[in-house]
Amino acid sequence: MSLSDAPKPSQPQARQLLRFSHVVIIGKYQAPGSRDVVEEVAHFLHDQGCDVSLERDTALNTGLNQYPALDVPAMGKTCDLALVVGGDGTMLGIGRQLARYGVPLVGINQGRLGFITDIPLEEYPDKLRAILHGEFEEDARSLMAASVWRDGRCVFEATALNDVVVNRGGAASMIELRVEVDGHFVANQRADGLIIASSTGSTAYALSAGGPLLHPAIDGWVMAPIAPHTLSNRPIVLPAHSEVALEIVSGRDASANFDMQSLTSLLHGDRIVVRRSEHTLRLLHPRGWSYFDTLRKKLHWNEGG
Amino acid sequence: MSLSDAPKPSQPQARQLLRFSHVVIIGKYQAPGSRDVVEEVAHFLHDQGCDVSLERDTALNTGLNQYPALDVPAMGKTCDLALVVGGDGTMLGIGRQLARYGVPLVGINQGRLGFITDIPLEEYPDKLRAILHGEFEEDARSLMAASVWRDGRCVFEATALNDVVVNRGGAASMIELRVEVDGHFVANQRADGLIIASSTGSTAYALSAGGPLLHPAIDGWVMAPIAPHTLSNRPIVLPAHSEVALEIVSGRDASANFDMQSLTSLLHGDRIVVRRSEHTLRLLHPRGWSYFDTLRKKLHWNEGG
Amino acid sequence: MSLSDAPKPSQPQARQLLRFSHVVIIGKYQAPGSRDVVEEVAHFLHDQGCDVSLERDTALNTGLNQYPALDVPAMGKTCDLALVVGGDGTMLGIGRQLARYGVPLVGINQGRLGFITDIPLEEYPDKLRAILHGEFEEDARSLMAASVWRDGRCVFEATALNDVVVNRGGAASMIELRVEVDGHFVANQRADGLIIASSTGSTAYALSAGGPLLHPAIDGWVMAPIAPHTLSNRPIVLPAHSEVALEIVSGRDASANFDMQSLTSLLHGDRIVVRRSEHTLRLLHPRGWSYFDTLRKKLHWNEGG
Amino acid sequence: MSLSDAPKPSQPQARQLLRFSHVVIIGKYQAPGSRDVVEEVAHFLHDQGCDVSLERDTALNTGLNQYPALDVPAMGKTCDLALVVGGDGTMLGIGRQLARYGVPLVGINQGRLGFITDIPLEEYPDKLRAILHGEFEEDARSLMAASVWRDGRCVFEATALNDVVVNRGGAASMIELRVEVDGHFVANQRADGLIIASSTGSTAYALSAGGPLLHPAIDGWVMAPIAPHTLSNRPIVLPAHSEVALEIVSGRDASANFDMQSLTSLLHGDRIVVRRSEHTLRLLHPRGWSYFDTLRKKLHWNEGG
Repeated sequence: MSLSDAPKPSQPQARQLLRFSHVVIIGKYQAPGSRDVVEEVAHFLHDQGCDVSLERDTALNTGLNQYPALDVPAMGKTCDLALVVGGDGTMLGIGRQLARYGVPLVGINQGRLGFITDIPLEEYPDKLRAILHGEFEEDARSLMAASVWRDGRCVFEATALNDVVVNRGGAASMIELRVEVDGHFVANQRADGLIIASSTGSTAYALSAGGPLLHPAIDGWVMAPIAPHTLSNRPIVLPAHSEVALEIVSGRDASANFDMQSLTSLLHGDRIVVRRSEHTLRLLHPRGWSYFDTLRKKLHWNEGG
Repeated sequence: MSLSDAPKPSQPQARQLLRFSHVVIIGKYQAPGSRDVVEEVAHFLHDQGCDVSLERDTALNTGLNQYPALDVPAMGKTCDLALVVGGDGTMLGIGRQLARYGVPLVGINQGRLGFITDIPLEEYPDKLRAILHGEFEEDARSLMAASVWRDGRCVFEATALNDVVVNRGGAASMIELRVEVDGHFVANQRADGLIIASSTGSTAYALSAGGPLLHPAIDGWVMAPIAPHTLSNRPIVLPAHSEVALEIVSGRDASANFDMQSLTSLLHGDRIVVRRSEHTLRLLHPRGWSYFDTLRKKLHWNEGG
Repeated sequence: MSLSDAPKPSQPQARQLLRFSHVVIIGKYQAPGSRDVVEEVAHFLHDQGCDVSLERDTALNTGLNQYPALDVPAMGKTCDLALVVGGDGTMLGIGRQLARYGVPLVGINQGRLGFITDIPLEEYPDKLRAILHGEFEEDARSLMAASVWRDGRCVFEATALNDVVVNRGGAASMIELRVEVDGHFVANQRADGLIIASSTGSTAYALSAGGPLLHPAIDGWVMAPIAPHTLSNRPIVLPAHSEVALEIVSGRDASANFDMQSLTSLLHGDRIVVRRSEHTLRLLHPRGWSYFDTLRKKLHWNEGG
Repeated sequence: MSLSDAPKPSQPQARQLLRFSHVVIIGKYQAPGSRDVVEEVAHFLHDQGCDVSLERDTALNTGLNQYPALDVPAMGKTCDLALVVGGDGTMLGIGRQLARYGVPLVGINQGRLGFITDIPLEEYPDKLRAILHGEFEEDARSLMAASVWRDGRCVFEATALNDVVVNRGGAASMIELRVEVDGHFVANQRADGLIIASSTGSTAYALSAGGPLLHPAIDGWVMAPIAPHTLSNRPIVLPAHSEVALEIVSGRDASANFDMQSLTSLLHGDRIVVRRSEHTLRLLHPRGWSYFDTLRKKLHWNEGG
């Protein structure tokens, strides 16, 4: 897009009509050209009448200093919209942190449609303007609160938006996990590992492991084994209000991954417990957005062949 | 079990403690030895202090005439518990009809554990006595209300507990279906067919087609393609409150099956619409029952090999 | 491509260098614009010094009458190369008939790369010229000779290049097949059906049913169940020199399909026997052709996403 | 079985009728009761007229010293039959080492049928006696010769009977492999890993990863991705005479496993090359043995449910 498309400064009264008054921008620092895009979008928001801030690392990395730089708690307390310019990874990273503050997120993707980053860069002025004026679809995603227990004590805690994965070490042949749901024994699973994914994560690793797609309105997790030893060990969709516990029975060098971001090594007897977080991620989409349109495009349905 | 294990006649006051006062028995007429079992169970219930009736065809087929014979509407109006002696098929058949009356079902299996028929014949006296006294787990299963639309008119209606299946004719090579959810276009699917299954049906045909298991507390349907032409056309779990519409785009001799019990031929342009029924099936299980125990046994998990 | 790219008439001596002296062209009659393409390719071949004929229906449908029109036996006896202008379906159809004559085939695709129709229309002059001069890769594909036996008599015979499929009727719930290989009992399979596919057919229906890809050099068939009732009933690759027999044990309206082209209804007790045909299909590809290039493109590997 | 069932000493002339004159016994040292079984079987063989030796570690672990103790080269040079008393793991371990000497193997299982260890302990006298007299089915299994290349030098070599597995480290999210077959580029695969399995290994890890079963007469490998990122990356069966090369493009802590027995860490740019070994494993089975009987029992086909 041409920078000259940017709209003229807004009239004072415009602000009164805005649904969101203080927007923080989070960029994908590593992306080349990120500075120009962040700057342009910041100007655009300012022109619309919004207060604009930059997430601290975004400010640092772009060197843009005409807007306040905020850390996550400050963003959570003072902003009413978070605008991500990047991809699904950036959305997930900041979303996990902002969920507790209830700040909604909207995502502009640079080039490649994301599952949740759904505004193409070249369409952002119209789409964002509409959203600022209250024209949007809202979509709430559940988060997982995971903890690791050893000898009765919690030794690790993490929040996951996509998935909690327990798997074998690279040199081991298999892991055995005792699975319980709400205290009921499910099975001892022997496999490369086990994925517990949210609807958001159902399009990620769990899909590769043979799991189903979960519509975001499904209040559940999919539990999908990776290369299970028993062929009838199929993926199962569990209610999100249940508590899932995985106990390491055997297998060397087991570890637990949370959104493939944080990681902890596991010992025999360790229990990984997954519950629904009390927080949810609020995602905003342009009016007319459909989850199925995104699926169809991302999964290359209906492209012949 | 030995018939001499049957308990002695109950004291008059026993009845006051019963949670269910009028029980109707539904047998699997074709099964050999069915008469003896139905008779024994009927005596047992009577001895517990219950009024006992027999479903009309069960009475006819067993020739037992000392208990009233009731048709479904009469059962629905006068009974507060339906006891099935048979298998999952018998449960599903009567369950579909009784759901509208809110009468709960409990199932005794003759030899082979069912997914929903979970009291072994040899354990029925203890298990049933406990249930009659209010010791049970209740589990509500959603039903699907399906309809077929042609030229704007509804030409077929059916209720399904397991699944709605649209498939190609035996001599055709493929069917193409346009899938919509709540009016949103999902995709044109080319496949042998498409299954929309409830959690109850997720252990049946949908599982063979690669669908996931759905815990009964999941308020959703799984939509699973059968041998899809596009490899990324994976099963998807949809919220049960959504309306799923399938339109026949091409393919010869297409038909729709509802619980593999009722069937209708389809023409190009026909739309099959699936909604959640306003009724639910109430299933009672012995106290301590766990869905996972049934899964583990039926799917032969943890049997070595 | 521009028609003016067509090369100039060949010198008389050119013919002596040709590996193939009499080429028959088979077109896809239904395709619009087919006449022009067939005419152009025929002129090109003539200019190269080949005798050119047209397959009878191609001649009829295009109205081109300056070249002899041949039926299959005449093609088999007099031609040393068959050139298909169309898609995989056209290749398979004529390939099944020409295999017994040992005439090799080469395919020009109009727009969409086929698994076996691998010369793009716009590249045909260079590619064909090279092939005519002996620059090609040859690839031999096994065919299946299938027969249906009832009460000890053969009631149907067919040749298949892709697959032999036995399946249930559209209104039936399942078929049960007793499977034997070289007289050894394999299993009774309950499923929607069973596919026996060659390596050529492994990219077609069998792939949708969960079968593996078979490299053309693999001398085997893949036997893949469609929606099998038993989850451990996995696809199995059998040696092509074995005799596979499928007996209909139960299921209504069963039928057998051969390349989805010929079809026969089946009764309980019917046996479908599949052996390797004594003939093979000879496919020619441009020098440098790789099976893996075709796979990668057709299956959209390495396209990101 | 009762030890008193052991047959009486053989007559001198019996030996002349034996197909195998020198049998070495390999036991599963860890198994309790192994000593008694090995001793009994050794006596039985001696009584049949065979020279009997024990594999060195078997002799050490059982403490049996009345038979010569041989290392693998000595076994290879002097024995004409190797008898394994144990499970598939023991068979695979010794089979890998004996293949180069052409000594055939036969396996007695203690309790649990193996895929290749197919004589039940209680049936060994009759089955072994028949085999010693030449009544058996022979079955030759291909082995893989794998090597790892770094900067143009071979840094690791191993032989595998089941599979060569390249996979990510436990803490990594994915590995990317460039796959080539006979120098042709196949694809860049992003997955948890990639399995190349023989027909023998097709019932092991590859099956869990979604690979097909390969009949032992199939002269090919199955290449199966583990949790592939691209859903159309399906298992493919490659001719065993081809050379498969996997190059590590990205991914942390990658390693290669050979029959899950030997292991090597991999760096970016390393190439793992798999060829067919010049040796094959010769397996002997009792007359009447069928591969399909073993499959059906091990995979629990036809057990109802």
